Amino acid sequence: MESELIAYLRRRLPSHPLLRLGPGDDAAVLRLDDVDDGVVTVDMLTDHVDFELAEVDPRRVGRKCLAANLSDLAAMAAEPLAGVVALALPRHGGMELAVALYEGMLPLAEKYNLAIAGGDTNSWDGPLAVSVTLIGKATERGPLRRDGARPGDRIVVTGSFGGSLLGRQFDFEPRVHEALLLAERYELHAGIDVSDGLSVDLAHLVERSGCGAVLHTDAVPIHVDAQRLAEQRADGSTPLDHALDDGEDFELILAVAADDAQRMFSEQPLEVPLAAIGEFVAQPGLWQLDRQGTRSKLIPQGWEHKFD
Amino acid sequence: MESELIAYLRRRLPSHPLLRLGPGDDAAVLRLDDVDDGVVTVDMLTDHVDFELAEVDPRRVGRKCLAANLSDLAAMAAEPLAGVVALALPRHGGMELAVALYEGMLPLAEKYNLAIAGGDTNSWDGPLAVSVTLIGKATERGPLRRDGARPGDRIVVTGSFGGSLLGRQFDFEPRVHEALLLAERYELHAGIDVSDGLSVDLAHLVERSGCGAVLHTDAVPIHVDAQRLAEQRADGSTPLDHALDDGEDFELILAVAADDAQRMFSEQPLEVPLAAIGEFVAQPGLWQLDRQGTRSKLIPQGWEHKFD
Repeated sequence: MESELIAYLRRRLPSHPLLRLGPGDDAAVLRLDDVDDGVVTVDMLTDHVDFELAEVDPRRVGRKCLAANLSDLAAMAAEPLAGVVALALPRHGGMELAVALYEGMLPLAEKYNLAIAGGDTNSWDGPLAVSVTLIGKATERGPLRRDGARPGDRIVVTGSFGGSLLGRQFDFEPRVHEALLLAERYELHAGIDVSDGLSVDLAHLVERSGCGAVLHTDAVPIHVDAQRLAEQRADGSTPLDHALDDGEDFELILAVAADDAQRMFSEQPLEVPLAAIGEFVAQPGLWQLDRQGTRSKLIPQGWEHKFD
Repeated sequence: MESELIAYLRRRLPSHPLLRLGPGDDAAVLRLDDVDDGVVTVDMLTDHVDFELAEVDPRRVGRKCLAANLSDLAAMAAEPLAGVVALALPRHGGMELAVALYEGMLPLAEKYNLAIAGGDTNSWDGPLAVSVTLIGKATERGPLRRDGARPGDRIVVTGSFGGSLLGRQFDFEPRVHEALLLAERYELHAGIDVSDGLSVDLAHLVERSGCGAVLHTDAVPIHVDAQRLAEQRADGSTPLDHALDDGEDFELILAVAADDAQRMFSEQPLEVPLAAIGEFVAQPGLWQLDRQGTRSKLIPQGWEHKFD
């Protein structure tokens, strides 16, 4: 029952200095007096699309729902503040499922000092749908946007890519701390997180910035999972294909001023590896440059929600 | 396609002084420098539960999804600022449906000066689910909460009750302006909006306030739709039963200091009718007092999401 879940949340959710009023009222109340620019993101994840509830621990599902949203805040170089959660639960087993989802979210919320401020819980005959809305705070440098990449900027990425569906799609670490640190120390012109795929998210970024990009394919960090998946699939796809197109890596793509990129690589400020994988160019479009120096069109492939 | 919908939103959503960055990035950016206490609410509405998509114009569905959230801000006496919308759309006809939902929301957003800041659009094989998150601003008097009712306070309601499913469930007006005006001029101790039902929402309010309430049943304003529904149903239910238990009236229940309630009724500050329908008492529980002066337990009945 809805009222039981509210009672659980009132017991279970930790207090937080930002939270003036938590679950159990018509709305939550947050102290925002210290916030000039609020960064707001919402992501709805659904059964059979973003996860298969029958095949995975629901705590990992809950964690993923929150982590994907935290990754969006990371993409804006914003500090996480608070979140609200809306659930559409199947009627049977809904209470246990809701608790498991929250139990998956809470350790991650604590890690990023995020106040879970409340939510809305519904039951229905449909599959599980989880909608998380987060509010973050832009730093003094302002939010990192998609539309600021300039010709000459380096394409810098965190981590490595491909094969996330072997498990990283659930257990990835959102690059919140990395984004905040890099935005503070270096001149980042634009950023996006890789949810749909390295190639398609790079395409989003250049489209919004009104420029193009040349990707050095042999510089793309390929995750061991991309190699494993290419072997498992045996469908002719290469590890590079998986790195470019799989998505749900939840790493960052950044447009970094060339001088600052050089400084970044000499300083190596993160534990997570950083890689320069190409540069932004004036001519709109996406190209790949292979080891032999051959340049060809890069056709972005990745996830898009299709409906007509 | 998701990208087409984003293009539509970027064309269609009006600019707003609070909106530093609208749809098309990883998150929206809002100017919150003028906000001390932010009021955050989320509501997910789903097909076959909150509406029957096959039977109603989707613009009315969109309007309802936004209006129900605005009603939650009204219940907190908060000024609407901005909102984000997450959709899970059926794959076939999803684009047309999404546009219709937004077209239903936009006039209401404009009316309440609410910035639609962006959203998340998904497709799946499940029924339509719409999750709206709103951010509002508490006034200098602070947010109106559920837990402040005191013995002796009058139970004051806006409007009239019952039979909302004959159409008012879609076309109701959220009591945003009314709540702000009343909170400014009178000493309101607590408030809630009637989504689940007058009796059950009054029960929520007294439970949170740690007190009780006596409802004068002959003072409850009964909507003509409650009479029509009782006649249509012919199941022995009275118009009063419908007024107490139907829900989705989206009117306000307020706990008002007795002196201020008197002043409120002499001043009649609203176009919407106000009614005093009883008083809060120290003893926890809900009672009804009928025309003959007989006092009996009031068993709150109304909507609760049931899951096990």
